[in-house]
Amino acid sequence: MLSLINAERFREDFDMLARIGATGDGGVHRPCWSPAHLEAQRWWLARAAEAGLLTRTDSAGNCSAILPSSISDAPTLLLGSHTDSVPNGGRFDGALGVLAALEVARTLKESGIYLPVHIEVIDFVDEEGTLVGILGSKALAGTLTAEELRTPRGGRAALEAGLARAGVTEAGLLAARRDPASLAGYLELHIEQGPNLARRGIPIGIVRGIVGIRSFRLTYHGQANHAGTTPMAQRVDAALGAAAFVLTARELVLRDFSQEDAPCTVNIGQMRLEPGAFNVIPGKAELALEFRAPESEQLNRLEKMLLSLAEVTARQFGLKLTVEDAGGCAPTPLSARAQAACAAAADSLALAHTTLYSGAGHDAMSLAPLTPAGMIFIPSRDGISHSPREYSEWDDCVNGTNVLLRAALNLAGVS
Amino acid sequence: MLSLINAERFREDFDMLARIGATGDGGVHRPCWSPAHLEAQRWWLARAAEAGLLTRTDSAGNCSAILPSSISDAPTLLLGSHTDSVPNGGRFDGALGVLAALEVARTLKESGIYLPVHIEVIDFVDEEGTLVGILGSKALAGTLTAEELRTPRGGRAALEAGLARAGVTEAGLLAARRDPASLAGYLELHIEQGPNLARRGIPIGIVRGIVGIRSFRLTYHGQANHAGTTPMAQRVDAALGAAAFVLTARELVLRDFSQEDAPCTVNIGQMRLEPGAFNVIPGKAELALEFRAPESEQLNRLEKMLLSLAEVTARQFGLKLTVEDAGGCAPTPLSARAQAACAAAADSLALAHTTLYSGAGHDAMSLAPLTPAGMIFIPSRDGISHSPREYSEWDDCVNGTNVLLRAALNLAGVS
Repeated sequence: MLSLINAERFREDFDMLARIGATGDGGVHRPCWSPAHLEAQRWWLARAAEAGLLTRTDSAGNCSAILPSSISDAPTLLLGSHTDSVPNGGRFDGALGVLAALEVARTLKESGIYLPVHIEVIDFVDEEGTLVGILGSKALAGTLTAEELRTPRGGRAALEAGLARAGVTEAGLLAARRDPASLAGYLELHIEQGPNLARRGIPIGIVRGIVGIRSFRLTYHGQANHAGTTPMAQRVDAALGAAAFVLTARELVLRDFSQEDAPCTVNIGQMRLEPGAFNVIPGKAELALEFRAPESEQLNRLEKMLLSLAEVTARQFGLKLTVEDAGGCAPTPLSARAQAACAAAADSLALAHTTLYSGAGHDAMSLAPLTPAGMIFIPSRDGISHSPREYSEWDDCVNGTNVLLRAALNLAGVS
Repeated sequence: MLSLINAERFREDFDMLARIGATGDGGVHRPCWSPAHLEAQRWWLARAAEAGLLTRTDSAGNCSAILPSSISDAPTLLLGSHTDSVPNGGRFDGALGVLAALEVARTLKESGIYLPVHIEVIDFVDEEGTLVGILGSKALAGTLTAEELRTPRGGRAALEAGLARAGVTEAGLLAARRDPASLAGYLELHIEQGPNLARRGIPIGIVRGIVGIRSFRLTYHGQANHAGTTPMAQRVDAALGAAAFVLTARELVLRDFSQEDAPCTVNIGQMRLEPGAFNVIPGKAELALEFRAPESEQLNRLEKMLLSLAEVTARQFGLKLTVEDAGGCAPTPLSARAQAACAAAADSLALAHTTLYSGAGHDAMSLAPLTPAGMIFIPSRDGISHSPREYSEWDDCVNGTNVLLRAALNLAGVS
């Protein structure tokens, strides 16, 4: 019977990594290819080498620690996450998964167990998108385009500066593709970043899929006018339609799209009124609308209902509406085989588990189209993430890592 | 019987002034002390001198054309408005009143009528507030403070540049006060800037008073969070309270404060959500609230009801509210004597008239506390102003100027 991970050694790693880029309030600041992130990568590779694992850095800057199979042309089972953080983020998001996977590789190495796959622990670059977003995993999947690098969400200057600090080139990013036939699967341990597991007291979440996202810029067009001389009843105030949409979009989603097992969300994160003065009636109101759903069919239905609601709220106040697509991504179902491997692992450890959807994006989105990909979630206190207040109980971190260990063996076909 | 003004000469003036700073779309761009505004002042003084009027520029930069009484120590009846415009404004706002007053002075000079007052036509600087707001009339009233010049609404740099171009000093602005005992009154012809006269088909409006204004910055405080992983029912979204306020504040004012004879208005001209991203639930929503009422008692009642409505909409969505006073001004009742002088003038010309309040600020606000002040409004097409589309019928301009002529004589006590 396989032993469990070494929780003490794992804890030591966790505390050491949390010191790199520490912000002094319990959080870390390690945007991709910042000096703190590069230091974290170096520290992590050294730690892997100490454990007798092979290390490599690919042409995209992704760092790996490898426990080779005795069969040289065996496929590779990837286990990973990321060491980069959002600006002033927490110390669990990403870091937990990378260190858990390293601990799994060390435990497997010590156990001397026969492995029909190479185990490759991988620390993907720029998962958080301070530069491009799930950059390292897209590069590995071969889905990164030169176009994305020309207009990165963090700005071109930040990308160029990061590449220079890391010694990575755009050509290197575009050449980091791996042959899918060389892969046996991908598993990632991550904090939930939502309140469901903690609220329900369930230690393990098995991710069914990652929600799809669509975003639009809605602009309500009214008539800017003098806020003192224009009678109330004769105004064509763009803010009224926008405000009505903010309220009714939420009501619509709460009422029709909030099933517990496949919840949808809507957010209006930005509103800009023009010209934007105390004494001028808003002639324009621009909203940033985003919505998410686990299934494509739901996403389509949400889009149809939200955009017609926007039209209705515009007409209600005599406004014109224009709609601009601001991009998004399709829902990503995760592998049934990987889910079964995780469930069997949790069962073998007598840990209660449930399935859920991830409302946030992850590197698994890049890998799922290529190879069986799975994710294991552990509870996040109050569902807080991307914040120094992000916190998970240590016992949950250890339990999640043991599930990762056994799920990896299950997925590799080791009985 | 007094003759009427020379409509042809007046029209010639109007067309010439509209060419100075013309924007090519029917509007003008003459912010205070811009090159175009300084050119307009010079042209206007030359035009007044051609007509045999005395001209002077006071230490604040206000330009005057004077038709003296034969009694040297007679008080002065001021007739005026302003030649400055908002950026890309219309050609009627201000310009009409200055040219109408000049035409009145010329008509009076030609008539040889006995005048118990000096007639002073005055072009006040910076009525529009691209620098300070009703600057010239405040300087003349002696109510301008050094403090206002330190933090002008247009920014300190713009004020300093304007002063340098005009050859005016801060000391000059603060020394331009006139003795109220030297004044016999103030009359101004202006476009309504609202739709009431045009809609009702009434050529002359006699202004009862200028509304008071109060403004506040309201901030709704919620909790910023991940827009994908936070369930809809558990969000503390600051945008919801702000949106509910935008809708209900309007409903409140429409229902309880919209009597035809003394209308109140409310405007939310700005909304800022923080942090302001597609994928982050707004943790903060900041609103720019302004409301206006003709009477102080109404203004107090409006403030009380709107601020408690803000509190209610915050609590409705579990938010905290903070309120910051952003200044304002008290309502200005205009002189009953001046109103009677205007009404008698309109009656003598068989022009229908009505009383109304001004929802916009004017230089009469500075003068009303010192001397009998009155304003005559003419219809604005569709109520549009501060726009190149601002328009009044020429017949209405001529009628308003004839009313100004007779109202001046009535107020001066010439029967």
